[in-house]
Amino acid sequence: MAQEQPAARILAIGSHPDDIEYGCGGTLVKYASAGHGVFLYVATAGSFGGDPELRRREMEASAEIMGAEKVFWGDYTDTQIPESQQLVGEIEAVIAEVRPLFIFTHWRDDTHQDHRNLTACTLSATRYIPNFLFYEGPTSQNFSPNVYVDISAQLDAKMALLEAHASQMTKTHIEETSILDMARSAATYRGIQARVRFAEGFVSQRLLIDV
Amino acid sequence: MAQEQPAARILAIGSHPDDIEYGCGGTLVKYASAGHGVFLYVATAGSFGGDPELRRREMEASAEIMGAEKVFWGDYTDTQIPESQQLVGEIEAVIAEVRPLFIFTHWRDDTHQDHRNLTACTLSATRYIPNFLFYEGPTSQNFSPNVYVDISAQLDAKMALLEAHASQMTKTHIEETSILDMARSAATYRGIQARVRFAEGFVSQRLLIDV
Amino acid sequence: MAQEQPAARILAIGSHPDDIEYGCGGTLVKYASAGHGVFLYVATAGSFGGDPELRRREMEASAEIMGAEKVFWGDYTDTQIPESQQLVGEIEAVIAEVRPLFIFTHWRDDTHQDHRNLTACTLSATRYIPNFLFYEGPTSQNFSPNVYVDISAQLDAKMALLEAHASQMTKTHIEETSILDMARSAATYRGIQARVRFAEGFVSQRLLIDV
Amino acid sequence: MAQEQPAARILAIGSHPDDIEYGCGGTLVKYASAGHGVFLYVATAGSFGGDPELRRREMEASAEIMGAEKVFWGDYTDTQIPESQQLVGEIEAVIAEVRPLFIFTHWRDDTHQDHRNLTACTLSATRYIPNFLFYEGPTSQNFSPNVYVDISAQLDAKMALLEAHASQMTKTHIEETSILDMARSAATYRGIQARVRFAEGFVSQRLLIDV
Amino acid sequence: MAQEQPAARILAIGSHPDDIEYGCGGTLVKYASAGHGVFLYVATAGSFGGDPELRRREMEASAEIMGAEKVFWGDYTDTQIPESQQLVGEIEAVIAEVRPLFIFTHWRDDTHQDHRNLTACTLSATRYIPNFLFYEGPTSQNFSPNVYVDISAQLDAKMALLEAHASQMTKTHIEETSILDMARSAATYRGIQARVRFAEGFVSQRLLIDV
Amino acid sequence: MAQEQPAARILAIGSHPDDIEYGCGGTLVKYASAGHGVFLYVATAGSFGGDPELRRREMEASAEIMGAEKVFWGDYTDTQIPESQQLVGEIEAVIAEVRPLFIFTHWRDDTHQDHRNLTACTLSATRYIPNFLFYEGPTSQNFSPNVYVDISAQLDAKMALLEAHASQMTKTHIEETSILDMARSAATYRGIQARVRFAEGFVSQRLLIDV
Repeated sequence: MAQEQPAARILAIGSHPDDIEYGCGGTLVKYASAGHGVFLYVATAGSFGGDPELRRREMEASAEIMGAEKVFWGDYTDTQIPESQQLVGEIEAVIAEVRPLFIFTHWRDDTHQDHRNLTACTLSATRYIPNFLFYEGPTSQNFSPNVYVDISAQLDAKMALLEAHASQMTKTHIEETSILDMARSAATYRGIQARVRFAEGFVSQRLLIDV
Repeated sequence: MAQEQPAARILAIGSHPDDIEYGCGGTLVKYASAGHGVFLYVATAGSFGGDPELRRREMEASAEIMGAEKVFWGDYTDTQIPESQQLVGEIEAVIAEVRPLFIFTHWRDDTHQDHRNLTACTLSATRYIPNFLFYEGPTSQNFSPNVYVDISAQLDAKMALLEAHASQMTKTHIEETSILDMARSAATYRGIQARVRFAEGFVSQRLLIDV
Repeated sequence: MAQEQPAARILAIGSHPDDIEYGCGGTLVKYASAGHGVFLYVATAGSFGGDPELRRREMEASAEIMGAEKVFWGDYTDTQIPESQQLVGEIEAVIAEVRPLFIFTHWRDDTHQDHRNLTACTLSATRYIPNFLFYEGPTSQNFSPNVYVDISAQLDAKMALLEAHASQMTKTHIEETSILDMARSAATYRGIQARVRFAEGFVSQRLLIDV
Repeated sequence: MAQEQPAARILAIGSHPDDIEYGCGGTLVKYASAGHGVFLYVATAGSFGGDPELRRREMEASAEIMGAEKVFWGDYTDTQIPESQQLVGEIEAVIAEVRPLFIFTHWRDDTHQDHRNLTACTLSATRYIPNFLFYEGPTSQNFSPNVYVDISAQLDAKMALLEAHASQMTKTHIEETSILDMARSAATYRGIQARVRFAEGFVSQRLLIDV
Repeated sequence: MAQEQPAARILAIGSHPDDIEYGCGGTLVKYASAGHGVFLYVATAGSFGGDPELRRREMEASAEIMGAEKVFWGDYTDTQIPESQQLVGEIEAVIAEVRPLFIFTHWRDDTHQDHRNLTACTLSATRYIPNFLFYEGPTSQNFSPNVYVDISAQLDAKMALLEAHASQMTKTHIEETSILDMARSAATYRGIQARVRFAEGFVSQRLLIDV
Repeated sequence: MAQEQPAARILAIGSHPDDIEYGCGGTLVKYASAGHGVFLYVATAGSFGGDPELRRREMEASAEIMGAEKVFWGDYTDTQIPESQQLVGEIEAVIAEVRPLFIFTHWRDDTHQDHRNLTACTLSATRYIPNFLFYEGPTSQNFSPNVYVDISAQLDAKMALLEAHASQMTKTHIEETSILDMARSAATYRGIQARVRFAEGFVSQRLLIDV
């Protein structure tokens, strides 16, 4: 059947440059290339992991590869994202501009305080957006996905996004394991669960589906 | 964007006539009318709740209103659906014929043994089907949905499906509450969670989404 | 058996005018009319949802209909309730005055930051109160009740409480659904689970029962 | 307030002699002595743990101490209780005779197959009984109670019930720990959570409360 | 510190040849080579996945590579493992012979009925064994590990175990993904969570640790 | 087998003097006496529960009995421990000095705000420590352990640790129940689950085991 399906607007939210790419970069590439509008909010320039100017440039380069329409930058300091009404308000302002149909953000149980706090604020700010999905990252805990996106055709592109963050490649706290190794194994692992070659996994808080 | 989207084949599985309608009737009406193929497997004729011949006829009438392509009937006795390899095999045979992309069945925590056993067998038989959603019913326990279908435009049709099961209208074990009252309040309640007028709620075990 | 049962003192805690009524208004009407002492703590005047003076008056009117003995008002700003030791102390002071046997408050998983923060402080302040129940609201997430109160005889009174908050009637973020529609469908939905006509559902954290 | 409160009828269900006593013996003593009607269903004579004739006599003696009105005996073999429609039917027959308001049974996650199977059947058979509580035992897993009964005044009586099962006193699989030691420590441990001297803890599946 | 640590006896339980290897093969290699006694119980010869004689030989070859002391074979038919008292008894007999300190078996939530049923029986039969760990497999659901074993030095050996099951190499239901690809990605993915190069992840039901 | 097993370094974290002892004192005595290095971080002097100078002295005495190498003192005020980046940094500094292999801290669901906040900060600060276990206390909620330490030989020593906090002996909010009664019943109760005489129970977030 041919259906007239309008382009959706998607807002992905992350604490540091490369968080979004690790969690849902393949999904965003897929949707941007299908004509949907992809927008990113990044709360900090990630100064804890490297020179913030460099990291901003890496992020902008990654967003361009992804086909994202715009990166919204928060002005928070790495490791110090607060759970505050001010941050809720900032995300609400982004939402007022983007009017997204989908929100992607960090899974709520995470050992990184920035991730926890940003997600708490995001839950508040996006209260009336119909589709809300949590993505996973290396510091997620107790994450058990119930929704998947097949990224078999986007895995290389996802790797390219992560390679754009060249300064972060080996900051994994595990010897001989690069961020690319981690992302590839996660994509294979989630693919097994979704019965496809490569996938990204999500926990759905709420999702209005159409077959 | 105009997308060529192929018709999906959907298999809904229930223990007794009207279980499927209560849990996901609105969703099935929506998808059938959108051109997707809707198939039903009903394990028993529901003799515990009324004359089995009558109940079969009610079910067939409901399936016709729904636009379902076929009702597969199991030959089990109401209240005695087993958790058995034979039942797994029967569902596998239906799947081999229908080749569905989506499975809908009872939520796994339920006070009715038929629902629990049928769902256990369905989990086994549908192991490699990519989309698997649990629907709710009056005997579900601890059900907290994470996926919704907007049935605002299908609520009347859902009521019509349930009315086709005229023999069951007041068998709710609650005074002054008909099955229609129950279904309508559930649709409103799940709509609140999905931020739409009326919805059906599902727990996703796995779901491959495309925006 | 005739038993001499002393009147219990109940403290219900909510962030904004009408939160308590939506979550457990029928229960409070039932207990107030049975001679128990009902006390309310409302942390903000709800200025985000309307004129705070008006909303205070609506709340006081509702409390009078309910038969509550007193409304304690917090002095917090709507959307800015903190998780703070000061708020814990304020609730402790109310508890010292009321000496309640029962606490009712927002469910802890909620998209509204005020609800989350108030509940966190309430958990601390009420540590030694034997009965602690969470109520639900439209912004609750993952709420699955295990305790119910039959409000079949109090549904109309519950509607009257909500009507006292006339300024909030249509602020539901869902078209054609008023707060009364929402409350009525929730009461029916929870009634189905409790096998009664209308109910309010609660999650018990701890509850000392006597048959 | 003086309230006319009718006597409730309570049905406690257990697999073997002394299971009920361990899980909720104090509660049953409390309610029987308050004038409520206490009924017991015991599915096996516990031949795996001793002479079945002796164990039946111990059970009958315990029931008499408890003040129970009647012990219904199932005819199942210890370790072989099935999850079957026949057992569902037997429990339904007991319910038809007792018409209980409250059901107490084993917690559903348990390493003993008899406990799991009996509880599955009980969930089905008691579908329309308004109050359903799970009790704990030494083989329960992942049990985290949300409802408590204060048995400070019944602890000695609970010990007497367990002592009536003299043949089981040291069958605990832990050196130097008798069943009395176990029950006493559980009562203290649950009392800590309930903020009373001694308590029994329960998981409520559904419970209609009145303050 | 030098400690005299006695060899532990470990019993790993699986439904089909290669289930144990996929779930905990690296762990078993590690412990066997450290001098502990490794024993295997395999309930079926896996006739659904190939010639049963061939599969038995593959299993015996794998056990030899692993350094296991003995494979106990159940006589069940693939896809038809029952949840029965007889199977509980058989596992109890193996336990009486092996006297293990550790049990490893399938995670309890699984789409394969054989895995679910074997695990239910194992939970019963091993009730008094102090250490009980669930391993994962491709058909596990909702598995979120809390215990890990570092198999960085055993990954190659684990691959060798799986290669011994040559007949199963490509039976993954996912194109272009072999069982080796799956196991390698799982080891990397669980390694990320454990902060080591490669790991196997487990859910602990109970585990008596010593630092 | 004789194995050369290096001494492990353990860091236990608690909000107030005696929290660590109640939760894992027996475990720490066991490991200190086995030659491992035990270090303690106590965030406040517990002025809410008594004279802070006295409580510090009690804590130091207890640490000496325990065989701990050092107590690190935080400078926070009792009841006012924040969830802050500063506290994360302080714990990171302790970790840099101690280089622990194991972290023990409060269970994350607790009615005491100090416990919740300290644990949230600890989760962040210890992100790359391989072994992370939550201990329980009287204000824990929904705690269901999956790891145990046998403290049958250390129960008396654990009692001695708690007796060193003489000022806290009866501050239990439960009549006739001292902190020693509580700890003893918990040790018995957890012992039942671990199939030993006395145990401490833990929830493992991640744990790298070796048999």
